Amino acid sequence: MPEERKRPEWSPPDGGEGFTSHVMKGVEGGHEGMPGSVSPVSRKAPLKRQQLSVSDLEKGIRQGNRTMLARAITLVESNSTRHQAESQELLDRLMDRTGKALRIGITGVPGAGKSTTIDTFGSMLCEEGHQVAVLAVDPSSSVTKGSILGDKTRMEKLLRSPKAYVRPSPTGGCLGGVARKTRETLLLCEAFGFDIIILETVGVGQSEVTVRSMVDFFLLILISGAGDELQGIKKGVIELADAIVVNKADGDNQRRARMAKAEYNRVFSFLQPFTEGWKPKAYTASALTGEGIPGIWEVIQNFRETTRASGVFERRRREQNLDWMRGMLDEALRRRFFADPDVVRKLESLSSAVARGEMPPVKAVETLMAEWVR
Amino acid sequence: MPEERKRPEWSPPDGGEGFTSHVMKGVEGGHEGMPGSVSPVSRKAPLKRQQLSVSDLEKGIRQGNRTMLARAITLVESNSTRHQAESQELLDRLMDRTGKALRIGITGVPGAGKSTTIDTFGSMLCEEGHQVAVLAVDPSSSVTKGSILGDKTRMEKLLRSPKAYVRPSPTGGCLGGVARKTRETLLLCEAFGFDIIILETVGVGQSEVTVRSMVDFFLLILISGAGDELQGIKKGVIELADAIVVNKADGDNQRRARMAKAEYNRVFSFLQPFTEGWKPKAYTASALTGEGIPGIWEVIQNFRETTRASGVFERRRREQNLDWMRGMLDEALRRRFFADPDVVRKLESLSSAVARGEMPPVKAVETLMAEWVR
Repeated sequence: MPEERKRPEWSPPDGGEGFTSHVMKGVEGGHEGMPGSVSPVSRKAPLKRQQLSVSDLEKGIRQGNRTMLARAITLVESNSTRHQAESQELLDRLMDRTGKALRIGITGVPGAGKSTTIDTFGSMLCEEGHQVAVLAVDPSSSVTKGSILGDKTRMEKLLRSPKAYVRPSPTGGCLGGVARKTRETLLLCEAFGFDIIILETVGVGQSEVTVRSMVDFFLLILISGAGDELQGIKKGVIELADAIVVNKADGDNQRRARMAKAEYNRVFSFLQPFTEGWKPKAYTASALTGEGIPGIWEVIQNFRETTRASGVFERRRREQNLDWMRGMLDEALRRRFFADPDVVRKLESLSSAVARGEMPPVKAVETLMAEWVR
Repeated sequence: MPEERKRPEWSPPDGGEGFTSHVMKGVEGGHEGMPGSVSPVSRKAPLKRQQLSVSDLEKGIRQGNRTMLARAITLVESNSTRHQAESQELLDRLMDRTGKALRIGITGVPGAGKSTTIDTFGSMLCEEGHQVAVLAVDPSSSVTKGSILGDKTRMEKLLRSPKAYVRPSPTGGCLGGVARKTRETLLLCEAFGFDIIILETVGVGQSEVTVRSMVDFFLLILISGAGDELQGIKKGVIELADAIVVNKADGDNQRRARMAKAEYNRVFSFLQPFTEGWKPKAYTASALTGEGIPGIWEVIQNFRETTRASGVFERRRREQNLDWMRGMLDEALRRRFFADPDVVRKLESLSSAVARGEMPPVKAVETLMAEWVR
């Protein structure tokens, strides 16, 4: 069975944010310089040290103050109700500055060299004059602590660039929480002025689908292997990709990389493209030598031109916004529903009966809805 | 963009059932003999002619009375609130008899010979002593009237068999409605005593995913073609399949069919299997000559044994039941939410602002939730 099914029998939804069971996290700024390092702070020290208002943060971001950006992101990542109200207010004020960046999602099998590729690719973009923000999306980061963007040595060049900003995954726990935080951080980075946002995901559970729902272009990084090339790639991920890069095409590996590229192109020929009017292809590259990396950028620029001309680019942005809204709405409705103690009391036995095939689901739902005191 | 995105900017959910905008359909029995023929009846003639009670229907189904089965299905397919309450009551009473059939989903590209294959396959099963129900799932059937199971000449053998039951797609309109009706019809057929249920879908929009969520085994029927074999197959459908049958492997076509089979096996080698512990494969068959059809049944039996032994079979059934319940619950919540005139009044402008990227989705949702008078 697919991985995304691994949740328990019936658990109240992943809503995450605002659930009382969530530990309220302290909020603090101070990611400037080395933005990747989040230092956990004692609870109940919310923005205290400097008492920054929403207006301060807004002004700071509009002026390009990195300290303010880091503080704003920390605010967005907070699970406290007050901070969330503040961050919504902040986002609302900054919306006029958002939506202008190119959003790129990058995923890949472990060991494919995602971080190194992002380092080489991002540094190249910075040298060309772009401002690049790299955000990690890793719903499991609270468990596999540091699995993503953890090894900073792999993003050395990018971390040295004054035009880049690297932010590790929020430790939100569930995917829903991480998704909201990532989307809002993306908006903050756009408002700040980054014109290219890279979302990196390790590919845990449904996280590729989540990242795909936030980006314009989705890149899959693979390597050549022995035999079963796609081993380790999750179900359906190839079909989300706008391009595949076979990394580590250097030294003795070049011929094998070219063969893998041909294989992946063959697979693409059997799949429907994810993006209307765009035929995904495979390429080879070496993040180590840098060969092929400029080619990736050309592909992405070509993609942007093509989809903008056809209207697919804008249409997808609109759809992504609306899908996000729908998802948040469903979550909010479920949260209110499951806040009812009468509902929760009945839930267990009803869902067990449904799981065992002893009660029609519709009847269980009707019973719950009737139980729900409006 | 994927087809499933084609709904308008923002429409209240597909909930379907119970929405006042739905035309209430008359309910009538009388599908016996030629169950495929649904005769539309004037409104407000609900079960009048004989005034059948839920107990009558229950008794009839337990006794194997086909007229009663047809009447019960018609009740399930009704959009009227009263009929739905009755059908839930009926289903609830019959649950002890459900869950025992093998549920098989069949889809394929147009022209692949789905109906003919089902005819040959289903007749063979009947000859072996099985009781086979064939249900069509076609959310578009109200538009492309009769596109599925319409051409009865293709199911001639099956329609003649006293052990088979063929039911066209309910004209429910939206996929959500069709899905509910199909699931409940499936339960009725199981309660009646059919031990094999075949769900046929034409593959419109998301219908394969919906059918996949209802069945144990999912079969994709294709044909050999020139070059791009998978042309016409929707994105992601191959990954849902537990097996592919290359149909029309007869006469001059046999070599090409074998080549296509090899191609599909190659594609499978690049994809993660949908069912844990089961490696999907491609086969050739000819619904015309019957060659290869018994082989399909062997594969399916093998599948059942393997997944039962591993526990995957039962686990999936439980998950399907719970997913169905979750989906129905979300739908019920949305329905109640969108029944609020204050919500509806605000919805249009808020969702437009979100689509244009002018308002953060979370803020729009908060505004709507605040608007919602409990």
